[in-house]
Amino acid sequence: MRVVWFDGEFREGPIAIDPRDRGLILGDGVFETIAVLNRVALWRTAHLARLEAAARELAIPCDRPMLDAAMDRVLARSSGAFETLRLTLTRGIAARGFASNGEKPSLLLSLEPLPRGSLFRPASLANVEIRRNPSAPSSRLKTLSYVDGIAAARAAAALGADDALMRNVWGHAACTTIANLFLVAGSELATPSLDQGVLSGIMRAALLRHAREVGFVPVERPVRPEELTAADAVFLTNSLRFVRSVESLDGSRLRQRPLAPFIDVLCAIAAEQCGVDPRLI
Amino acid sequence: MRVVWFDGEFREGPIAIDPRDRGLILGDGVFETIAVLNRVALWRTAHLARLEAAARELAIPCDRPMLDAAMDRVLARSSGAFETLRLTLTRGIAARGFASNGEKPSLLLSLEPLPRGSLFRPASLANVEIRRNPSAPSSRLKTLSYVDGIAAARAAAALGADDALMRNVWGHAACTTIANLFLVAGSELATPSLDQGVLSGIMRAALLRHAREVGFVPVERPVRPEELTAADAVFLTNSLRFVRSVESLDGSRLRQRPLAPFIDVLCAIAAEQCGVDPRLI
Repeated sequence: MRVVWFDGEFREGPIAIDPRDRGLILGDGVFETIAVLNRVALWRTAHLARLEAAARELAIPCDRPMLDAAMDRVLARSSGAFETLRLTLTRGIAARGFASNGEKPSLLLSLEPLPRGSLFRPASLANVEIRRNPSAPSSRLKTLSYVDGIAAARAAAALGADDALMRNVWGHAACTTIANLFLVAGSELATPSLDQGVLSGIMRAALLRHAREVGFVPVERPVRPEELTAADAVFLTNSLRFVRSVESLDGSRLRQRPLAPFIDVLCAIAAEQCGVDPRLI
Repeated sequence: MRVVWFDGEFREGPIAIDPRDRGLILGDGVFETIAVLNRVALWRTAHLARLEAAARELAIPCDRPMLDAAMDRVLARSSGAFETLRLTLTRGIAARGFASNGEKPSLLLSLEPLPRGSLFRPASLANVEIRRNPSAPSSRLKTLSYVDGIAAARAAAALGADDALMRNVWGHAACTTIANLFLVAGSELATPSLDQGVLSGIMRAALLRHAREVGFVPVERPVRPEELTAADAVFLTNSLRFVRSVESLDGSRLRQRPLAPFIDVLCAIAAEQCGVDPRLI
């Protein structure tokens, strides 16, 4: 069952949107995808803060109380299963000219079940030629302008991989189309820094914040692609899959030191929020 | 008066779209904006070929006969004034996962009047920090993922300029957020080559094809930013404004050799297509 909220009301079937909405015609908006467990939106405050910051950077008004109220209404219809809540905020209608402000932003929420098997599943990656661009909002923020990630994901799928390893325009390893990248090397837990054209992931931030508690030194820095084959383990984080081990890159197997410490930390924080350990669903 | 065509019919007011449409939620689609003069869509074949090629690269099915028929229906409602026709083709609904194909693409057409004064008006440009990324479909194709261009246009507007001069990630001058860039130096007519992260503009191609007829040698190559200040003239081309002289960059005036030969060539081709010289509207 999907639950859809648009323009202040629950909707069934298609939604009625102005054909000039800049989200629809120019990818001019931002979004969040949030894991919902036991009817609770995990890391809710962090997701809303990120959405708000991205909207501010693009000068799209974000009415936080309205957003919170809409989220509550939608979550009240949660099935209680493992679900994803997506928030989409567009600039709405604007006068001709790319620099125009909008009249009234459009807010779309949707809640739908996620397959349980998607959590923690290992991933194979393939290098693709589409690069992350650190100067571009579309590489740094969670905007509706996702076509480069889609093209990268398609290129990876054509190579038989689960996702693309995206380098940035300087040749450094950056992220995948949907996840942040981490490397374990000895006691170092490294991830590309935010100046590398990557999203400021919610799970990424949580892991960096708690790494020392499980004996690792978190480091944000540029990562050379060849470090991946030398690492003790390579893994991905995102809000809907938590932690995914990277088992291979371009068909070559990578080392896989157990990721239990990182999974433990994130699942414990999730359980604190919603009362359920994500490993038990 | 706006004319809107969506999902096979004329529509008034909002359109009914599935909230999962990938054009709406991921900028996953392509578009064209075409000048309409005397009820004729100018350079129609070139625009449709470009849309088709971009859709093919992104694996979005493009039903050309259906598109042509929809265009004819919409153009039959043209007011006869100077107008713009926008074609928007999205992937429609697709299964979860960025690499998924769509079920049925969504096709949206809209026709609306353009202010006459927009043609040939000179422009001021400002350098911005958002770079074109030659590896990215969003920099090369006319996709719905336009947020980087929007952010660049906003940055330029904040600096008091009409549009942004966008360099690419290698530091070369590339284009603006809505136009291709040309430089006149002696008898050379130079424009950044297509490997520089620029759109393959319809006016750009027309000018390159006809430059020799008006005594210029067309050259596609990387362009260094400092060439702009040294050039005899710098100008922009796009389908809705034809030719715009660049009168200043970052507040410094640029040389402005008359652009009449280029305007003459493009207006003559336009007049052949629609029977009206765009300078006379």
